[in-house]
Amino acid sequence: MKVGVIGLGTMGMGAALSIVKAGHETWGCDLREAPRAELAAAGGHVVGSAADMPEGLEALVLFVVNAAQAEDVLFGGAGCVERLAPGTVVLGCVTMAPAASKALAARLEARGLLVLDTPVSGGLVAARAGTMTIMGSGSPAAFDKAQPVLDAIGKKIWRLGDAIGVGSTVKMVNQLLAGVHIAAAGEAMALGIRAGADPQALYDVITTSAGNSWMFQNRVAHILAGDDTPLSAVNIFVKDLGIVLDQARALTFPLPLAAAAHQLFLAAAANGQGACDDAFVIRVWQVLTGIALPEKPAA
Amino acid sequence: MKVGVIGLGTMGMGAALSIVKAGHETWGCDLREAPRAELAAAGGHVVGSAADMPEGLEALVLFVVNAAQAEDVLFGGAGCVERLAPGTVVLGCVTMAPAASKALAARLEARGLLVLDTPVSGGLVAARAGTMTIMGSGSPAAFDKAQPVLDAIGKKIWRLGDAIGVGSTVKMVNQLLAGVHIAAAGEAMALGIRAGADPQALYDVITTSAGNSWMFQNRVAHILAGDDTPLSAVNIFVKDLGIVLDQARALTFPLPLAAAAHQLFLAAAANGQGACDDAFVIRVWQVLTGIALPEKPAA
Repeated sequence: MKVGVIGLGTMGMGAALSIVKAGHETWGCDLREAPRAELAAAGGHVVGSAADMPEGLEALVLFVVNAAQAEDVLFGGAGCVERLAPGTVVLGCVTMAPAASKALAARLEARGLLVLDTPVSGGLVAARAGTMTIMGSGSPAAFDKAQPVLDAIGKKIWRLGDAIGVGSTVKMVNQLLAGVHIAAAGEAMALGIRAGADPQALYDVITTSAGNSWMFQNRVAHILAGDDTPLSAVNIFVKDLGIVLDQARALTFPLPLAAAAHQLFLAAAANGQGACDDAFVIRVWQVLTGIALPEKPAA
Repeated sequence: MKVGVIGLGTMGMGAALSIVKAGHETWGCDLREAPRAELAAAGGHVVGSAADMPEGLEALVLFVVNAAQAEDVLFGGAGCVERLAPGTVVLGCVTMAPAASKALAARLEARGLLVLDTPVSGGLVAARAGTMTIMGSGSPAAFDKAQPVLDAIGKKIWRLGDAIGVGSTVKMVNQLLAGVHIAAAGEAMALGIRAGADPQALYDVITTSAGNSWMFQNRVAHILAGDDTPLSAVNIFVKDLGIVLDQARALTFPLPLAAAAHQLFLAAAANGQGACDDAFVIRVWQVLTGIALPEKPAA
């Protein structure tokens, strides 16, 4: 298959590499030189602007940051929608509000394109291994057309119904939990450290106890290593919990925990931690209380 | 061994039954007739007051609700501390503030008793199976004496150091996470239902995604079954998060997520849900927004 991937960030790069590995002709697009070089070295074709994507793509996978970027790379001045033939399937792997996902799909379907609402979960490791969880919804025809791509990038591929928006709704619920759990991991570790517990012992016990979460297990390892290199950054949850809260407000629906967690990511970003790994939301407590966090061993 | 267990609630009953199964002479104490009858039927001896516990106990396991009850069953008018010979080990399996655990241990050690700070995690199923996680601290002599009891009730038995209070500190951090995760599970499921997602599909997807937690997986199953029979009640988290917040306040340490979660459990209790399963903190959103929760199938 001839497949395009727009947005070669953490997840998009992993997906593009997995599509190359599955034997498809892969076209990757990113503004930045470094990810283009990485994909080219792995055997992909690369372009710096969506307007330079080739004709004849059978599937286009969007891994841009938000709904505005998705609209721009398709319908903007340098967008590629004109080059997509009717019957091409567009996979929206972008975390966006269900309403935005529906609006974008309607414009694409009006041009005879097939569309899937397919946000993903799993992080860097799963993205590179081609084992992401895909929360998909869309027409059976779109799923059929996209199947080789889904097989290349995903392990657990959910078909949550025909309606665009269901995938994004489920992803929104997942992001609410993921964000609250990361912030809670920071709050809990910070308290334990302040109360005198050994951080490694806390981690070892909690990960075998009822207080565990996928995020606690994954992210507190970064805190213990003292490594704030962003696998996913604080700013991503400033954005994603912002989407969740905007969407809930539109539904007149109160989310006290998501709102408190969002404030903590905002506080971390205000303190200059926005580009750090999201586990370092814990620096909010470090800055406020002076607790000592584990330090990165000297190289 | 001759072992006493005071407090035959969810966890204490499980522990007492596990101790009987391990072949020890087991004495259980509870004010209530029903749990006494259950333990007696399984081969245990039972009493209705701590004052009626026999002499010659080699280990006494406390599974009462809080520090005040622990003090009462030992040092109160109907307490049993006079009947405990020096060298007997007292296991504090009660969720209490580390400071309270230390104060109680000091009084017991002054009488020549051995003491362990051994709060537990795992819930009803693990308690009955003898596979609880035990977050223990205390002297090597106390651990040695208590080992047959710990082996009977626990699977993962942590020795977190010699100092009383470390076990309770780690348990406090675990309870912070457990409470926040249950409330977040309610908030997330409520939002997903409001946004039109199928509750069972949400559960299936989230439990294979990065938004999962031990509590989400365990407690949302109760919501889907529409069964609010309390395995652990809303009121337990009103209490446990209260302990966490009191202890953190004593340390001048801010916990925005734990505080928000505590308010949600308080809101559920205020609405008459205190004795319901803790997963039904989700009724706060049901009452406020009118969402439909899954109903228990007719018998």
